[in-house]
Amino acid sequence: MAATASSPRQRAVPRTDSRDRLLEATSQLLVERDTLDVSLLDIAARAELNHGLVGYYFGSKDGLLLALLKRDAFKALESLKLLVEADMPPIRKLQLHIAGIIKTYFRHPYINPLINRLQGSGTDSARELSEFFIKPLIALQGQILSQAEAAGQIRAIDPMLFYYSTIGAADFLFRSRGTLPFAFGIDAIDQDLAESYARHVVSTILHGVCK
Amino acid sequence: MAATASSPRQRAVPRTDSRDRLLEATSQLLVERDTLDVSLLDIAARAELNHGLVGYYFGSKDGLLLALLKRDAFKALESLKLLVEADMPPIRKLQLHIAGIIKTYFRHPYINPLINRLQGSGTDSARELSEFFIKPLIALQGQILSQAEAAGQIRAIDPMLFYYSTIGAADFLFRSRGTLPFAFGIDAIDQDLAESYARHVVSTILHGVCK
Repeated sequence: MAATASSPRQRAVPRTDSRDRLLEATSQLLVERDTLDVSLLDIAARAELNHGLVGYYFGSKDGLLLALLKRDAFKALESLKLLVEADMPPIRKLQLHIAGIIKTYFRHPYINPLINRLQGSGTDSARELSEFFIKPLIALQGQILSQAEAAGQIRAIDPMLFYYSTIGAADFLFRSRGTLPFAFGIDAIDQDLAESYARHVVSTILHGVCK
Repeated sequence: MAATASSPRQRAVPRTDSRDRLLEATSQLLVERDTLDVSLLDIAARAELNHGLVGYYFGSKDGLLLALLKRDAFKALESLKLLVEADMPPIRKLQLHIAGIIKTYFRHPYINPLINRLQGSGTDSARELSEFFIKPLIALQGQILSQAEAAGQIRAIDPMLFYYSTIGAADFLFRSRGTLPFAFGIDAIDQDLAESYARHVVSTILHGVCK
């Protein structure tokens, strides 16, 4: 609370704006540095705000990281809702959804380490993660699967099994990128590799669930 | 080295036997307790050996865990070699291989956390993991894919993309099992769920790579 009184910047910008700026600065630094170990001072400097505001808005760095994951999850779920409601063949929705997951992992490589950290840090975090992200995600995936099945485009697929196998397939190249230099002589995942991987995963799963 | 001189047990059993007993005791305790945090004292007690022998054979607990992973990887690669050479349709080899990965993850749930720990603990470990496990595994998977393609059973599949997507799909249910109770009301992965998951992943991938 000291930050509230002592920071002249905080009065100069609306609440939502400086909160959003801190989240966006965190996202940028996590992408640039490819690690979750980014200091609050660096985040505040990037956002051009007093670092005391992190405590004020988020409680702690873990609170900030959780809020960032919620921000990104909310955006992803909003896009998926639009896709569910869109006027297009359900199989095309499935294709766009899976490719979209891989694009998200490529552009925001901190999402998986963050989810891992939440899953590993106790049952409360796993519960919270399930509520704000996994349950809504599975419900929306289930709607697309139902639409595709009703349209006769795929066989009956259990949404739970679909969720774990699809997210696992999409995620593993990025999660295991530390092995790429040694196993394949590839230094980093570039746009070309991310796109090849997306084509492979999309094609395998779409062929895999067709009738 | 102190342990060598002070342990009467060590002279009483042949070298390979006590080394293997320590590995097997570690494997059993990791499975039973579902965590990598098992003490050397407990491991030694299970093996009925002096805990100083861990230092003698493996240097440290991390050395013991690495040796355990190598033991399990060696067994898995030996089975896969037999499968590559077996006289059966290549598509059936692919089916048995993928189902076998999931069975291994179900029976030895410590393998993935161990691999994660190795990947996360620096480039030397990622290199070593690539050499003793990932590179041989990809080469063998590549042989099965070539056989299946030559037999006209599947389309041309890049072994690298196949490796990451297949292992990722096989692994994710087990890796994310902390979310099962909250997202699906399922307390633990039992034999039925492991088998359903294997059927789903095998069926999706086999349909997915077919011509």
